[in-house]
Amino acid sequence: MAKAAKKFVYTFGDGKAEGSAQMKELLGGKGANLAEMVKLGIPVPPGFTITTEVCGIYFKSNNKLPAALGKEVKAAIKQTEKITGKVFGNPKKPLLVSVRSGAPASMPGMMDTILNLGINDEVAEGMVDLFGDARFVYDAYRRFVMMYGDVVLGVHRHAFESLVEETKERLGVEEDTEIPAKELKKIVKQSKQIIKKAGHKFPEQPMDQLWGAVEAVFSSWNNPRAITYRQLNHIPPQWGTAVNVQTMVFGNMGEDSATGVAFTRDPAVGTKVFFGEWLRNAQGEDVVAGIRTPHGLSLESGGDESLEVCFPAAYKKLFGIQRKLERHYKDMQDLEFTIENGKLWLLQTRNGKRTGFAAVKMAVDMVDEKLIKREDALLRLDPEHLNHLLRPVFDAQARQDAKELASGLPAGPGAASGRIALTAEKAMEMAKAGPVLLVRHETSPEDIAGMNAAEGILTARGGMTSHAALVARQMGKVCVAGCGDADINYSAGTVTVGNSEYKEGDFLSLDGSTGKVLDGQIDTVPSEVVQVLIDKTMKPKDSAVFQTYDRLMSFADKFRSLKVRTNADQPDQAVRAISFGAEGIGLCRTEHMFFGEGKIGPMRQMILAETEKDRRKALKKLLPLQRKDFAGLFRAMKGKPVTIRTLDPPLHEFLPQDDEEIANLAQEMGVTADDIRTKIRLLHEFNPMLGHRGCRLGISYPEITEMQAQAIFEAAIQVSKRGGEVYPEVMIPLVGNVEELRLQEQIVRDTAERVFEKKGASVPYMVGTMIEIPRAALTADQIADVAEFFSFGTNDLTQTTLGMSRDDSRDFLEKYKDLSIYSRNPFEAIDQDGVGQLLKIGVDRGRQTKKDLKIGICGEHGGEPTSIEFCQQSGLNYVSCSPFRVPIARLAAAQAMLKSGTKKRAAKAKPKAKAKPRKAARRR
Amino acid sequence: MAKAAKKFVYTFGDGKAEGSAQMKELLGGKGANLAEMVKLGIPVPPGFTITTEVCGIYFKSNNKLPAALGKEVKAAIKQTEKITGKVFGNPKKPLLVSVRSGAPASMPGMMDTILNLGINDEVAEGMVDLFGDARFVYDAYRRFVMMYGDVVLGVHRHAFESLVEETKERLGVEEDTEIPAKELKKIVKQSKQIIKKAGHKFPEQPMDQLWGAVEAVFSSWNNPRAITYRQLNHIPPQWGTAVNVQTMVFGNMGEDSATGVAFTRDPAVGTKVFFGEWLRNAQGEDVVAGIRTPHGLSLESGGDESLEVCFPAAYKKLFGIQRKLERHYKDMQDLEFTIENGKLWLLQTRNGKRTGFAAVKMAVDMVDEKLIKREDALLRLDPEHLNHLLRPVFDAQARQDAKELASGLPAGPGAASGRIALTAEKAMEMAKAGPVLLVRHETSPEDIAGMNAAEGILTARGGMTSHAALVARQMGKVCVAGCGDADINYSAGTVTVGNSEYKEGDFLSLDGSTGKVLDGQIDTVPSEVVQVLIDKTMKPKDSAVFQTYDRLMSFADKFRSLKVRTNADQPDQAVRAISFGAEGIGLCRTEHMFFGEGKIGPMRQMILAETEKDRRKALKKLLPLQRKDFAGLFRAMKGKPVTIRTLDPPLHEFLPQDDEEIANLAQEMGVTADDIRTKIRLLHEFNPMLGHRGCRLGISYPEITEMQAQAIFEAAIQVSKRGGEVYPEVMIPLVGNVEELRLQEQIVRDTAERVFEKKGASVPYMVGTMIEIPRAALTADQIADVAEFFSFGTNDLTQTTLGMSRDDSRDFLEKYKDLSIYSRNPFEAIDQDGVGQLLKIGVDRGRQTKKDLKIGICGEHGGEPTSIEFCQQSGLNYVSCSPFRVPIARLAAAQAMLKSGTKKRAAKAKPKAKAKPRKAARRR
Repeated sequence: MAKAAKKFVYTFGDGKAEGSAQMKELLGGKGANLAEMVKLGIPVPPGFTITTEVCGIYFKSNNKLPAALGKEVKAAIKQTEKITGKVFGNPKKPLLVSVRSGAPASMPGMMDTILNLGINDEVAEGMVDLFGDARFVYDAYRRFVMMYGDVVLGVHRHAFESLVEETKERLGVEEDTEIPAKELKKIVKQSKQIIKKAGHKFPEQPMDQLWGAVEAVFSSWNNPRAITYRQLNHIPPQWGTAVNVQTMVFGNMGEDSATGVAFTRDPAVGTKVFFGEWLRNAQGEDVVAGIRTPHGLSLESGGDESLEVCFPAAYKKLFGIQRKLERHYKDMQDLEFTIENGKLWLLQTRNGKRTGFAAVKMAVDMVDEKLIKREDALLRLDPEHLNHLLRPVFDAQARQDAKELASGLPAGPGAASGRIALTAEKAMEMAKAGPVLLVRHETSPEDIAGMNAAEGILTARGGMTSHAALVARQMGKVCVAGCGDADINYSAGTVTVGNSEYKEGDFLSLDGSTGKVLDGQIDTVPSEVVQVLIDKTMKPKDSAVFQTYDRLMSFADKFRSLKVRTNADQPDQAVRAISFGAEGIGLCRTEHMFFGEGKIGPMRQMILAETEKDRRKALKKLLPLQRKDFAGLFRAMKGKPVTIRTLDPPLHEFLPQDDEEIANLAQEMGVTADDIRTKIRLLHEFNPMLGHRGCRLGISYPEITEMQAQAIFEAAIQVSKRGGEVYPEVMIPLVGNVEELRLQEQIVRDTAERVFEKKGASVPYMVGTMIEIPRAALTADQIADVAEFFSFGTNDLTQTTLGMSRDDSRDFLEKYKDLSIYSRNPFEAIDQDGVGQLLKIGVDRGRQTKKDLKIGICGEHGGEPTSIEFCQQSGLNYVSCSPFRVPIARLAAAQAMLKSGTKKRAAKAKPKAKAKPRKAARRR
Repeated sequence: MAKAAKKFVYTFGDGKAEGSAQMKELLGGKGANLAEMVKLGIPVPPGFTITTEVCGIYFKSNNKLPAALGKEVKAAIKQTEKITGKVFGNPKKPLLVSVRSGAPASMPGMMDTILNLGINDEVAEGMVDLFGDARFVYDAYRRFVMMYGDVVLGVHRHAFESLVEETKERLGVEEDTEIPAKELKKIVKQSKQIIKKAGHKFPEQPMDQLWGAVEAVFSSWNNPRAITYRQLNHIPPQWGTAVNVQTMVFGNMGEDSATGVAFTRDPAVGTKVFFGEWLRNAQGEDVVAGIRTPHGLSLESGGDESLEVCFPAAYKKLFGIQRKLERHYKDMQDLEFTIENGKLWLLQTRNGKRTGFAAVKMAVDMVDEKLIKREDALLRLDPEHLNHLLRPVFDAQARQDAKELASGLPAGPGAASGRIALTAEKAMEMAKAGPVLLVRHETSPEDIAGMNAAEGILTARGGMTSHAALVARQMGKVCVAGCGDADINYSAGTVTVGNSEYKEGDFLSLDGSTGKVLDGQIDTVPSEVVQVLIDKTMKPKDSAVFQTYDRLMSFADKFRSLKVRTNADQPDQAVRAISFGAEGIGLCRTEHMFFGEGKIGPMRQMILAETEKDRRKALKKLLPLQRKDFAGLFRAMKGKPVTIRTLDPPLHEFLPQDDEEIANLAQEMGVTADDIRTKIRLLHEFNPMLGHRGCRLGISYPEITEMQAQAIFEAAIQVSKRGGEVYPEVMIPLVGNVEELRLQEQIVRDTAERVFEKKGASVPYMVGTMIEIPRAALTADQIADVAEFFSFGTNDLTQTTLGMSRDDSRDFLEKYKDLSIYSRNPFEAIDQDGVGQLLKIGVDRGRQTKKDLKIGICGEHGGEPTSIEFCQQSGLNYVSCSPFRVPIARLAAAQAMLKSGTKKRAAKAKPKAKAKPRKAARRR
């Protein structure tokens, strides 16, 4: 049987469609949803979709479309003509189409679109005859020529725009709409001349126009904006875009036409209200670009100017459609509609972008509405969205005292203060020195890098669905949009907000939850979740935000098997992490404890000591200080496991650098400054990351490990004697050979026995190791002979496995990302192909030796969702991350569990709540 | 069935023995050979061996001997008594024994020995009655008490020695032998008092004496000397020593007694002559310690003083025995014999230590004598021995002009010049600054570290078999022993040789092949092998040394499957390596080429360039210089493969450090010195080993790779057009991700095509990669998609796999060796447990993708025998090492093949002589 030829084109219209919502990968999100809507009986202008596969073929064959495509497109055009009764290029009944991109993942505004395709001189004349409105026709024509010249032929749009400006100046009019038809016709002609001068020819034949547009849309997949967006959103470059060719409908065909955007729920805060904006006699672009400020849809939000009042029948129909679509897709929908001469058309539906807060609230609400299951709620959230619930707001007092300058739309919630930057470039540059607010008339896709660098965004124009608002919410940035009282003068480098003038570099503040613009710098305070959980300045019942958070967390905890711990070395950090749900400390870095008041002195004396005796003298001073720190941690953790890593960094990190400090230290120690400088020189290493650090220190100076173990066990006994539960896990870093661990373990156990005997009491404890260099993973079977637990230190494991210094790779890793060598920074998301192999080897071999070996991860990756999913797949018992990422990790762990579909198996491997210690008996 | 009890004691004597030569592991070398000799019918004093297993039990059970041992020892003593007719502790017919260590590997003089055990006051009296010689008896007695006090009871021997000195002074005599019996008896008494004062009791009961001595010998396994020796000779600490208890025979029982040492061939040069030394009326220790200078055995070597003349019957018997033993063991034997009242006893036979040169010559000769097979000859050599054949001799002219000061014994061949050091400590210290000669009256096991540090050793006393001579030969050190004309004054820090006085720190020279001591510093010249092969200053037929070398190499090449290449980046290095048998260049480091005349300037300009244009300008200057270097290499290699690694080190390594150079460079480049300092600062890295280097440079600056590829291919075409064969293999360093390789490979291939097209010719070539970071090994299957060959860079792979910087680990690796964490320095011998796993993973996965992938190694390990064996096991195709190690690698490769016993399989996997290039056709 011959292999079925690939189908390149999928048609839709008139209640029938070849595609469906399931075919997003092939048809793109837009194409798949257009097909689906048609099937649901929703009015959609007919047309067809050219598949993403064609995009792949196009790039692979050096920008050539497959031969077979021509025939399919022609057939699809024929079918569209049949449904609409219009004919492509026929002046009597002209078919005009839009040509739009549509990738499997939403990439709003990143790629090219061409409208009104199909017009030429002859068709224009015919349209004038048909509609009687020459101004409308020639306005559409000149827009098409300009767009085509810009997008397809690569002639800069400035040339076309200045034609319009000159005409308005000559005629003494202000608005584009005031230019008469005759002048518009002249502009069309002049535009074509500009194209000709640039060495191109404007194609008069509609089919030629179409092919040019299709290629341009495919090509735009690889424009710099789209590439940046894909990188920021981790969209693989090989996906490609589909092309949607669809009959034009006109929202600007007069006063009985309109266009708008709608959301089935409020995308900013998530409440279940029908929400959107519209403009009479306008094209969709006018709403999105934010050039005219649009009105609300419902009576409640738009009053007399609402769609509900102005187009009651269409509103009612639209309201019904949006309910149907949300129920059908079981998610909040973002719709585009057009009313042409009173008739409602749906141009697009997609899962709507939303703030993190709204995403969480909608997910929780939809569970309560029984629209979705808890599992669905968990799986559809981006764990990073939880950041939005945890982000700071203004300090109440400071906020009260602050001067309100103006109001805009609350387009991205949260509070931000920063210095004004008037261009994206400037924002990126200034962001290196401190927080920045990007202040623009309106933003465009060119600005995304600057938006990413800024804390908040303020625009003078545009609505809740403007580019600035959409992107800011997705990025989790504070945004106030459409603030008409902000007057920006780019050339003078000033912004006047209300009555106050600010220069670029001055401070301003934004409340993205209320839309207020405020004077100067205002202190921010923690989010409501933080206020309830940590500061206890708010009661749970008073915070709807907290309740939503709490409910989601309860879903997550129900479905996850991975434990979540935190990296903390101070009691306050530990308390915060517990409030966020941490189930233990996965990494207490003891070196941080040496930088505190009164500690760095003895630490330096210890390092500079020439003999073991002097070293022990200095360590004796450190012992009570360390003991106190550990006792604080143990009390805070109330019996939850506390993994304490023995001293890790190279000793020179503790030594003073500047002359004054060196002189002081010399005096304290009774030596000369030069003595100290000599010692510092001696401790210098070529590659300190690979030098004398980790357990190598404890092997060279066993007395350091001994002091730390003594402090740990004395603190543990102290807390335990006062009735507290304690569970220390002593972790030896940088082990590459089981003998290293054996030597250090012996010191820890001997010290524990000594302390227990002296104090007449004991506590349960474990001794384990970091797996953070390749040799440790490769010999994990041997290491597990001694270790009672493993913790993967994926920071160092990444550095050694990739032979790449985290501190030195920033610059070339940028280039590596551009070249797609690594799709994500391996220091952010675990490199599953490389480091991940060693992690799996480490787990497998460790468990070969000890079946129930407890295994966790404590590198930065422990709080990163894709890495957490990998940890689940690899059979880890817990992840450990910074306190503020604990909720994110809990959610990600639940997702990982649900995705693994192996709940039972994992649950079986789940460790007992508390592993049995090897030597010490449980405290009475 | 009950498990048979372990047997702890093996007896021998009277033609019967429970052990055999095959049981070295259990009985130690000495014990096994004693048993074997007895079985061969050779006269051996009867006795028994306590096994090495007992040594293990002794240490494991905290220095307790197993209970069952007592009974077995008693039975063995009984049997010895029965054979000899003597009885332990019986004054009428006393049995005296020696108690000696004997490990599976020879450790001469490292452990303790006790002689004359069994004497007490009563036995001494009986012996006087029996032998009539009271002086002999009390001399033996006082030696035993001193030895026992020192070795078993830990009382310092100085105390005993001063008793002897005082007595001699009081009596006004010079020699020990002049002390009369009465005084010796007094010394025995006083010695016992010294022991008592030190808190011990001298055991009068022979069985008590025996147990003390047995424990002392076992304990001496872990004395510092023995530990150092084991580390130097890679002997595992868990082997342990056996203890040999053997009836004493006395070479010092009068003028019809004698003792001596013999070799079946000359241990210095390997010729087949019966060789040895003896002393009349002496104990064996007297010969070894070199206190009296002994005579030759044969008439030829010893003249009137020879054993052949003085003890003709015993000589004849001994001559027969040595022939028999060599034929039996099929190796040169080192014998100890004693003549007691005219009767010959053999006390020991073992494979004799020998110089590297002698080892090679004997092995080759024994093949020619049909005594052994070529395989045996190859397997018994330590590849490092070849060093001895390649080591320098004095420059002939300089030697002629040099002043001969004195003559000693030619105990360790080769030529050495250095500064005089009079103690081992001083030698170690001074060796840091330059070559050192250790000059001592005689050496002792305490001196081995100092001997190791020195280039050569000169002793005033002792013979060819003295401690100094034995150890020096084994270490491959130059040694002149027994130079009576050297008068050393330790306290004044001077040496007088002949008539000239030298201070510590002055220069002296030694010819270890002739025994001459020479004035001042003398230039050395290459060995004969080098003179024949490289300098061509000698004809092959004129050099027996060369012929032996050449024959051994022909054996090696016959049996090896691994190819041997060299690491070289200059034509002269390449020529030398080819002479030594290199079959290609495995690593040409292009960075070395940038340090030459006229190159570093443009290189620095390239690095400091701000734009690609400026960079290309500087690269243009480098192109012809690189091309010339490559052309030279290609010509030298005559069509053998040349693996060229593209630029690898971080760029800052090329930049000037001192102010003057910076100022010069600034002037050349027309910038300020501060500009250059800023750039140097910007290029600074925290961990340069893990930083912006290797292929990362070529990815950041593709124009560098392009220039290098252009230079390679233009040079190749140039040489090829003049009729030369060329075969470049371009190697991309530090690849961790196949995409890195793909990008660099494309540049190389594009450049090759461009050059080939322009020149109208092409050459075959390959593009491959280093596997030197763990991720490369782990993803070798992907990398092999692009790479045409792999070369393991085990230096960096060791650094990254162990997370250990080679430059920063020297100090703590010392400690790690002491603690047995790593048995060998992983930067010297491949860490098979860790790095070795990655190497095997890399090979397996690479060959999964490309079955015939050519794989080599180019790290320092490529010239180290145990690593070469591992490479053979892992299925590599070649090793690459420095030119002077090529012969060693050839021999090691043959051994690896013979040990693997898989000749056929490996031969099958052997790559074709020349792999087919992928794109370019073979040059016409």
